[in-house]
Amino acid sequence: MSGNTFGRIFRLTTFGESHGPAVGGIVDGCPAGIQICEADIQKELDKRKPGSSPASTQRSEGDRIEILSGVFDGLTTGTPIGLLIRNRDQRSTDYEQMKNLYRPGHADFTYEAKYGLYDYRGGGRASARETASRVAGGAIAQQFLLDQGIRLSAYTLELGGMEAERISPEKAENTAYFAPDQSVVQMWDKKINEVKSSGDSLGGVVEVSARGVPAGLGEPVFDKLDARLASALMGVGAVKAVEIGAGKEAAELLGSQNNDPLGKSGFLQNRSGGTLGGISSGQPLLVRAAVKPIPSISLRQQTVDRQGREVSLKIAGRHDVSAIPRIVPVLKAMVALVLADMLLLQAGNSLYSRRPPGSG
Amino acid sequence: MSGNTFGRIFRLTTFGESHGPAVGGIVDGCPAGIQICEADIQKELDKRKPGSSPASTQRSEGDRIEILSGVFDGLTTGTPIGLLIRNRDQRSTDYEQMKNLYRPGHADFTYEAKYGLYDYRGGGRASARETASRVAGGAIAQQFLLDQGIRLSAYTLELGGMEAERISPEKAENTAYFAPDQSVVQMWDKKINEVKSSGDSLGGVVEVSARGVPAGLGEPVFDKLDARLASALMGVGAVKAVEIGAGKEAAELLGSQNNDPLGKSGFLQNRSGGTLGGISSGQPLLVRAAVKPIPSISLRQQTVDRQGREVSLKIAGRHDVSAIPRIVPVLKAMVALVLADMLLLQAGNSLYSRRPPGSG
Amino acid sequence: MSGNTFGRIFRLTTFGESHGPAVGGIVDGCPAGIQICEADIQKELDKRKPGSSPASTQRSEGDRIEILSGVFDGLTTGTPIGLLIRNRDQRSTDYEQMKNLYRPGHADFTYEAKYGLYDYRGGGRASARETASRVAGGAIAQQFLLDQGIRLSAYTLELGGMEAERISPEKAENTAYFAPDQSVVQMWDKKINEVKSSGDSLGGVVEVSARGVPAGLGEPVFDKLDARLASALMGVGAVKAVEIGAGKEAAELLGSQNNDPLGKSGFLQNRSGGTLGGISSGQPLLVRAAVKPIPSISLRQQTVDRQGREVSLKIAGRHDVSAIPRIVPVLKAMVALVLADMLLLQAGNSLYSRRPPGSG
Amino acid sequence: MSGNTFGRIFRLTTFGESHGPAVGGIVDGCPAGIQICEADIQKELDKRKPGSSPASTQRSEGDRIEILSGVFDGLTTGTPIGLLIRNRDQRSTDYEQMKNLYRPGHADFTYEAKYGLYDYRGGGRASARETASRVAGGAIAQQFLLDQGIRLSAYTLELGGMEAERISPEKAENTAYFAPDQSVVQMWDKKINEVKSSGDSLGGVVEVSARGVPAGLGEPVFDKLDARLASALMGVGAVKAVEIGAGKEAAELLGSQNNDPLGKSGFLQNRSGGTLGGISSGQPLLVRAAVKPIPSISLRQQTVDRQGREVSLKIAGRHDVSAIPRIVPVLKAMVALVLADMLLLQAGNSLYSRRPPGSG
Repeated sequence: MSGNTFGRIFRLTTFGESHGPAVGGIVDGCPAGIQICEADIQKELDKRKPGSSPASTQRSEGDRIEILSGVFDGLTTGTPIGLLIRNRDQRSTDYEQMKNLYRPGHADFTYEAKYGLYDYRGGGRASARETASRVAGGAIAQQFLLDQGIRLSAYTLELGGMEAERISPEKAENTAYFAPDQSVVQMWDKKINEVKSSGDSLGGVVEVSARGVPAGLGEPVFDKLDARLASALMGVGAVKAVEIGAGKEAAELLGSQNNDPLGKSGFLQNRSGGTLGGISSGQPLLVRAAVKPIPSISLRQQTVDRQGREVSLKIAGRHDVSAIPRIVPVLKAMVALVLADMLLLQAGNSLYSRRPPGSG
Repeated sequence: MSGNTFGRIFRLTTFGESHGPAVGGIVDGCPAGIQICEADIQKELDKRKPGSSPASTQRSEGDRIEILSGVFDGLTTGTPIGLLIRNRDQRSTDYEQMKNLYRPGHADFTYEAKYGLYDYRGGGRASARETASRVAGGAIAQQFLLDQGIRLSAYTLELGGMEAERISPEKAENTAYFAPDQSVVQMWDKKINEVKSSGDSLGGVVEVSARGVPAGLGEPVFDKLDARLASALMGVGAVKAVEIGAGKEAAELLGSQNNDPLGKSGFLQNRSGGTLGGISSGQPLLVRAAVKPIPSISLRQQTVDRQGREVSLKIAGRHDVSAIPRIVPVLKAMVALVLADMLLLQAGNSLYSRRPPGSG
Repeated sequence: MSGNTFGRIFRLTTFGESHGPAVGGIVDGCPAGIQICEADIQKELDKRKPGSSPASTQRSEGDRIEILSGVFDGLTTGTPIGLLIRNRDQRSTDYEQMKNLYRPGHADFTYEAKYGLYDYRGGGRASARETASRVAGGAIAQQFLLDQGIRLSAYTLELGGMEAERISPEKAENTAYFAPDQSVVQMWDKKINEVKSSGDSLGGVVEVSARGVPAGLGEPVFDKLDARLASALMGVGAVKAVEIGAGKEAAELLGSQNNDPLGKSGFLQNRSGGTLGGISSGQPLLVRAAVKPIPSISLRQQTVDRQGREVSLKIAGRHDVSAIPRIVPVLKAMVALVLADMLLLQAGNSLYSRRPPGSG
Repeated sequence: MSGNTFGRIFRLTTFGESHGPAVGGIVDGCPAGIQICEADIQKELDKRKPGSSPASTQRSEGDRIEILSGVFDGLTTGTPIGLLIRNRDQRSTDYEQMKNLYRPGHADFTYEAKYGLYDYRGGGRASARETASRVAGGAIAQQFLLDQGIRLSAYTLELGGMEAERISPEKAENTAYFAPDQSVVQMWDKKINEVKSSGDSLGGVVEVSARGVPAGLGEPVFDKLDARLASALMGVGAVKAVEIGAGKEAAELLGSQNNDPLGKSGFLQNRSGGTLGGISSGQPLLVRAAVKPIPSISLRQQTVDRQGREVSLKIAGRHDVSAIPRIVPVLKAMVALVLADMLLLQAGNSLYSRRPPGSG
């Protein structure tokens, strides 16, 4: 029970269902004096707006963020920041047909097993709509990080099995799919359109990188930076794998290949992805999430209803073909929340540790 | 700061360095009346003992667990369980040569960046020795889970790039490498010996599965079961990727392939790995961790010392060739800790939720 | 940083300043299937409305609660419950004169010391307005407790040094001042009016009692029931002392007087106030809070401004003469939040502890 | 479940029963580079040793602290500090007679209600012996606080209803009873001896003060400094009331008396006890705890056994006549733990808040 708070010091607590009155949250623990306004948050929210690529629906959410507290004269005050996004354009009737069915790949079955009842409209709390609150909270984290010289970027490395190169990741936000490589966009468009017309859906791989992260963030042995990042990304709906640096490939390398040697000017390669022993090394942080295909497909599927009777289901309504690209700003927001929290957790050491004479 | 507690209700807090007087921990929140004795814990500790495969060193740790509190007349009392394992056979002098160097792939550099100083003997807190406390705590969690009909198994799916089949995973604990497939052992022995003689090291992939997990465990949206598992496994030193169910492969499947259909008797496949929407579905739980090669190798490596001078380093002393198989019981312990905590977090719902009439 | 969440399982996180757009909060961890509607919350909010006694201002807050999530078809769903109360009738200009002064007895000085800046309008986050969110969250906790047969009452035992008897505490909610004894009301009215006309303010003592609390709640040794209650009450602005049962008087009793003997039908007296060893005993829970006089008085006071210059201050505007009676429902709400959390923390033991044969 | 951790960043987790093998704990989150050795802790432990005043038993505990981790070359390393104190001189047989009885004023009844079973030997976990771990953890907190110029003192203000003046509180530690006023000692000795010979027991009042606490500590609105202090003190066995500053007396003062005016050189009185709005003001912190009489008395008492039969009980064995003076260092330790945690929680603001131009 009560898993809706993320972080220990910089904390985001969220609420909201797909078809209820609103989604939103509370950011607690943001230092005082940080510049923040609704436009900073709106900009990030707009990145997960549907309609920006062929992969997403035309539901026009028109999310408008409202800051309810914690900001005065344009600066954070150190008190909790209330965030509100009213829900709009809800067609609950689309879901009436399915209120007694367990949609394959969705959380209907498990929510009912857990709570005994659930808000079946649009997935309720299990809807991706919930991630709007994460993006809003993450936008505040990003303002704090920027203030400390830490910059995040996020981009799609793979869509439907087709890979992109990291050619211009810093420009990815301006492209459809957040592609770090303009040359793949046409290919991905084609793939998406094929799969859409077949009534099916696709997954992919997203990478988030962070530059300017100081060495020393992460709290061994259970709140290591990589552990927190893994939790943050795996907790986003649709994510089924998380990698840091070389990731799964590390399992197939020799120690002599995987170890990052050090020279006068620092590390000579970055297989570690910016963490050693669960603590940031000062190298760029590199984390990846593998995203499963959207479970809502138009093809006929076999399932059961709440009485256990077998049913053949064909889901109507508007659905994205892929969680990519809309999931990209969500994953970036989660990394931002982790880093903001870790900066604050390290503050005590930064301020109070007495370094022995002669140490770095 | 203070990341040495794992879990919210069933909580393990650990302490201890490789070359200090002891390692150990405190399990808090274990329900009362569970049978537990030192032999139950010792049995698990013995599984991570060195020397059971060619991959590990001959350091004879001879870990002996002592229960200091929380158990009376053979039963847990609901009060915290103190756990102590004295350190033995420490050759601190092996490490004197390296006290001013940052060993590549190790946490020396980042611990110093974080804390300003560190116990350089054998990696200090960053040593794999720390995981003995996890195994001890996990053994208690496993007793509680067994009491609830939940059984874990853990086995090696890949070593140095060579895969094993899941032929008899339930017998893996009796084999070298925790192999779920006897036929690979000889091949793996050969590989390990080759790499050992070349002075290098190897990684691999470990899977943990759990049967008997009831549907309903996991606390959306930030403490989902998969998020907690990802944190638990990624927080073990050497792990660089975590997957649930189909894992990374899900990114390349179509929705129609990846969705698990339901029939009268339940789910018809298990690509989800036992979670939907971050909540257990009642299917077997399947999680995998990719383990990097051990960073301590006998080959000459380039690094710098604490004064920033370039140094050529050749690590002496005894070192495992691979974290596998000794990491296998550690990963199992972490999954056990997650499940015990999630069971207790769900207890409030189990006990107090009022299910509407007519619901399951 | 980030102290705006109360509770471990049944958790209330709040936000909001006196003169911002809104106050509100998120209740996370309420079991599913509990009946709750806006009217249940509104009823509690109305109890802290100003104007119900001579002691409070005429500011007409007209607080209207809106439930934003977590309730579907009249039942809690187990997901977080978003709560919103828009602020109205704000006369920020009343505060312009004081924006550079530290009002004696208020938190202006300490908020500035902590955060470097603060929202000076009406005390900002330090305003008693913040407690509306507590009352709203506490109303949900009380619904859950009622469902479990636990009933709270709260009443004023002392106002301006004049004591009331516990004659009919269960009717206190229907009286001005929440008096448990009708005969004191006239006397208290007179006192309040005298002090009001002199421009000064008053404090008092409030008691909260709970009946139907099962034995076994409380988590030694740091989250004991009495420790959590003390934290809950002392954390309400204006509270300067907290007592359980005999309270301070216990320090002057002999052991033979203070020990509660047991007979066949249970405890024979209740000096303990319903807890032993930090765990509820099944006796009525009795906790008291001493409330300081409201710091905003109309008398001239000596203070300094933000530049350290001495200033003579005379506070204008409307102010309550005493935090009583408006604080009474707030203190009740806090006790409810503690008990809801403690019930859920004990759920794991209730469900999973195996009691040895022959035990109670 | 799992209430054995205190604090959010500077955290103490404890274990241990009166008659088990050991008590101890883990301090997590202490900044690195703080000088600490076993003698620093032993010194504090010795203050709660029995036998230093007529009020305590002759059980010679001879507690010896052992540091198991987290300190290297005399400095904390930032990693968890394991603490161990072996139990000695246990006469479990003293308790056999009472294993089926609920001792009045003790936690036997509630522990059994909660856990279904309990370690009846000497009160088990509910024994005051548990507080040795608190004193050890608090000693580390005090070293950190000293490093920051914060000094605590603790002394007895009242024993058996007889008050002491705050004449020389800084010398209290050198006197029997931690008396801040030498002139009361003889009177208290007499009282204690009278009550001892009658077979009864006594309570009293203890004050802890802290000087050098910077303004700005405390995390509104739920983790206010006073709320945390109240929790810390009320959670010590035998404490039934907690006061800050004027405490209960504030309820009887007028606002004009209770408000602390400010002048050029700071506050002109300290009724607030060093906190305003739950945040430290820079004035000396003053907190008091009312301590009930020890429940173990030699007089015959009425109780029931586990089968509900009425029994007349006369407790044999050695027992303190009063929790004072042995509770004094425990209460001081708890205040130290709160302050250490609050310093670290404020570190993020200290380090990262951007104060607007022209602000203090």
